[in-house]
Amino acid sequence: MSETVENLKRMRQHAVAIFQSGLQAVAPGDAIRAYFRREDDRLLVNGRCYDLCQFETILVLGVGKAGASMAKTIEQLLGDRISLGIVIVKYDHLEELQRITLREAGHPVPDENGLSAAREILEAAKRADEKTLVIFLVSGGGSALMPLPVDGISLVDKQDTTRALLASGATIHEMNTIRKHLSAIKGGQLAQAIFPGTLISLVLSDVIGDDLDTIASGPCVPDSGTFKDCLKIIDKYGNLKLPVSVKTYLHAGARGEVPETPKQGDQVFKKTFNVIIGSNINALLQASQMAESLGYNTLILSSAIEGETVDVAGVHMALAREILKSGHPLPPPACLLSGGETTVTIKGAGLGGRNQEFALAAAQHMGSSGQIVLLSAGTDGTDGPTDAAGAFADSSTSQRAELSGLSLQTSLDANDSYHFFEHLGDLYKTGPTNTNVMDLRVILVDS
Amino acid sequence: MSETVENLKRMRQHAVAIFQSGLQAVAPGDAIRAYFRREDDRLLVNGRCYDLCQFETILVLGVGKAGASMAKTIEQLLGDRISLGIVIVKYDHLEELQRITLREAGHPVPDENGLSAAREILEAAKRADEKTLVIFLVSGGGSALMPLPVDGISLVDKQDTTRALLASGATIHEMNTIRKHLSAIKGGQLAQAIFPGTLISLVLSDVIGDDLDTIASGPCVPDSGTFKDCLKIIDKYGNLKLPVSVKTYLHAGARGEVPETPKQGDQVFKKTFNVIIGSNINALLQASQMAESLGYNTLILSSAIEGETVDVAGVHMALAREILKSGHPLPPPACLLSGGETTVTIKGAGLGGRNQEFALAAAQHMGSSGQIVLLSAGTDGTDGPTDAAGAFADSSTSQRAELSGLSLQTSLDANDSYHFFEHLGDLYKTGPTNTNVMDLRVILVDS
Repeated sequence: MSETVENLKRMRQHAVAIFQSGLQAVAPGDAIRAYFRREDDRLLVNGRCYDLCQFETILVLGVGKAGASMAKTIEQLLGDRISLGIVIVKYDHLEELQRITLREAGHPVPDENGLSAAREILEAAKRADEKTLVIFLVSGGGSALMPLPVDGISLVDKQDTTRALLASGATIHEMNTIRKHLSAIKGGQLAQAIFPGTLISLVLSDVIGDDLDTIASGPCVPDSGTFKDCLKIIDKYGNLKLPVSVKTYLHAGARGEVPETPKQGDQVFKKTFNVIIGSNINALLQASQMAESLGYNTLILSSAIEGETVDVAGVHMALAREILKSGHPLPPPACLLSGGETTVTIKGAGLGGRNQEFALAAAQHMGSSGQIVLLSAGTDGTDGPTDAAGAFADSSTSQRAELSGLSLQTSLDANDSYHFFEHLGDLYKTGPTNTNVMDLRVILVDS
Repeated sequence: MSETVENLKRMRQHAVAIFQSGLQAVAPGDAIRAYFRREDDRLLVNGRCYDLCQFETILVLGVGKAGASMAKTIEQLLGDRISLGIVIVKYDHLEELQRITLREAGHPVPDENGLSAAREILEAAKRADEKTLVIFLVSGGGSALMPLPVDGISLVDKQDTTRALLASGATIHEMNTIRKHLSAIKGGQLAQAIFPGTLISLVLSDVIGDDLDTIASGPCVPDSGTFKDCLKIIDKYGNLKLPVSVKTYLHAGARGEVPETPKQGDQVFKKTFNVIIGSNINALLQASQMAESLGYNTLILSSAIEGETVDVAGVHMALAREILKSGHPLPPPACLLSGGETTVTIKGAGLGGRNQEFALAAAQHMGSSGQIVLLSAGTDGTDGPTDAAGAFADSSTSQRAELSGLSLQTSLDANDSYHFFEHLGDLYKTGPTNTNVMDLRVILVDS
């Protein structure tokens, strides 16, 4: 028995090492340096070469949760070549910088600080000319941190629109189509403002599938939707209660009285280069190397796992149990890795996050044979409205809970994973990690 | 484009070949012969040897959806050594037999025919003596097909009890504990009746985890629950509306006025041998060989997949898309195999089954790159209340649906997968397969 406890403890340390190794691959510093290299007056960016002597001005703009450390890395690489820098970050996500100004703003609810910083970024972008190089740093949270509705539409109008669309059952794609058309900076409009300047956009992806037009609502990416599409969507959901200002504006757009967002093939994108410098799969690949070096047969399942947390956790555990039973999909000692972002349909009034709920649901399905350890955590160091990044579950969780008078099912029904794992001492806390590529799950299975 | 269509067509043929190959491994004939061999007067059963000369009487008893073809195989093997045979099957699941009588009964709702056949089986079992060998054939559906409540409790009382437990949120384990204590034949009581006869129970598993005490409510397996556990469960769910006859009986049992079900270690199990002759993993293993012979890099994910169908399908497709994107968990051309039984929370009034719904949900998540073909189907040849075993979905499903004026989302919301796939010609119909090891899914991915 004591041997089992020791082994679970060792496996837990391995899970942390594997997770941390994945995190390292997407730390903004390493991630940027992997794709963006300076050799004297040359910039080598993912296969392209830029001659810095061509540019009189280098602007660093940016937005997102990883903004501060991305900015810091760019300062280290470009130093005094930077003429001006403005990067919007979440409150208290600061770094000490020399040349780039960090502007704090509201997230997930946009606020006036975000609005004025977004305006400042757009103004700076518009001043770019042929001799300007703009480096735009994008990471998760960028959409809320950089709100800039068009003239005549207030932040509140835009938020009401989002709420009405959510309530109507509109898809995320439909919501984005409308939101980009109410924005003065998203849907490619930042790239449009920067043209004829040269634009390198370095992107840390926090979305499933790494679609550039979704991350931060694609400020540097052609918009595939039109004003007419917006009206179709409004028609489709019939009783949409949209603010009058929004309806009026979209109709004016459809009549051609307002310019369309820039489209694929437009010349404004001729000097734009979007590079994904880090995404969930990068973290999984590096985590996988660490797991193998620790002696585990390792399998990356997918970087695009989504769906209701409890059910997704059940599928993961079905694989773990099969490993113990038949040696498929691979023989123990085994490590399964997956990433993405699951959802939680809230039913209870408890405290938790999707990663903690994943661990709680998984604990129910670990069975009685062999040893299983799971670590599920957010790469940004936060999970739901809690101070934990995630939680551990293992083959002893269910028994330890019982001994502590905790009911797994009751905690799950109440969505109260935080208090459950807090009581067991099984929360995983990292503090802010300065990066964000959604969640990682490490599952270790030993016979 | 035509090349794509051709390739999807070929992949679909492969999916069928892979599925059928899995099915073959769990066809009762092959499955029984793999574990149960006769050499003149010796029976070799999964490593044990029985001398047929020891026995004056050989009884073949059995219950389950695969009963007819299991019985046929046993007749082929033991022929005129069989003294008597009674096997309960679903209506219209017949075979021509010489020595074994098939009794048809109600499923999933038990009926009077099941009751009288169960009584007949128990009577025959009680006549077994030291010179009797009983071969008991168990397969899916056995619980409903062989209802035999104890004296004083009617079939209706037992059904009301099941309904009340379901409504209370009791777990399947708790329900089984109570149901075994209301039965005169389940929870090891058939083995008890057969003792001191010798009992070989051949089991085709249709449950996740292959737990012997769950399959057909474990008529030949020690019962881990007690009458006292039954009272605890009733207490736990407070307002359980149970028939008076049921409450009275369980209380009498807890007071020791009624004999307990037989337990682990009881001598009545000394001459019992339970052998699982086929389960989902056997089907997956053989399917996997076929997939590899067709040139696919193949991975068995798990034989124990459960959970809400839509979410489980999403996870499977996240793996398929990752194969196309990064070559993980394995490079294309790839085959992912999984088995188990998912659930569908019914929201709409449409027609379908969990396999057809799986295909419908998967079609939403196939993405636009590469080619994906999915076949999800029940190994018993039926899926929900339909005449199909399952359905195909592939990378062209969503586009073909649109061209036909079908909405994937609308069909999903209405749980109307049958009509969706019927319209596209993508239902998979096999007719009754005479076996049942839950569902199989074949996913083929080509770049």
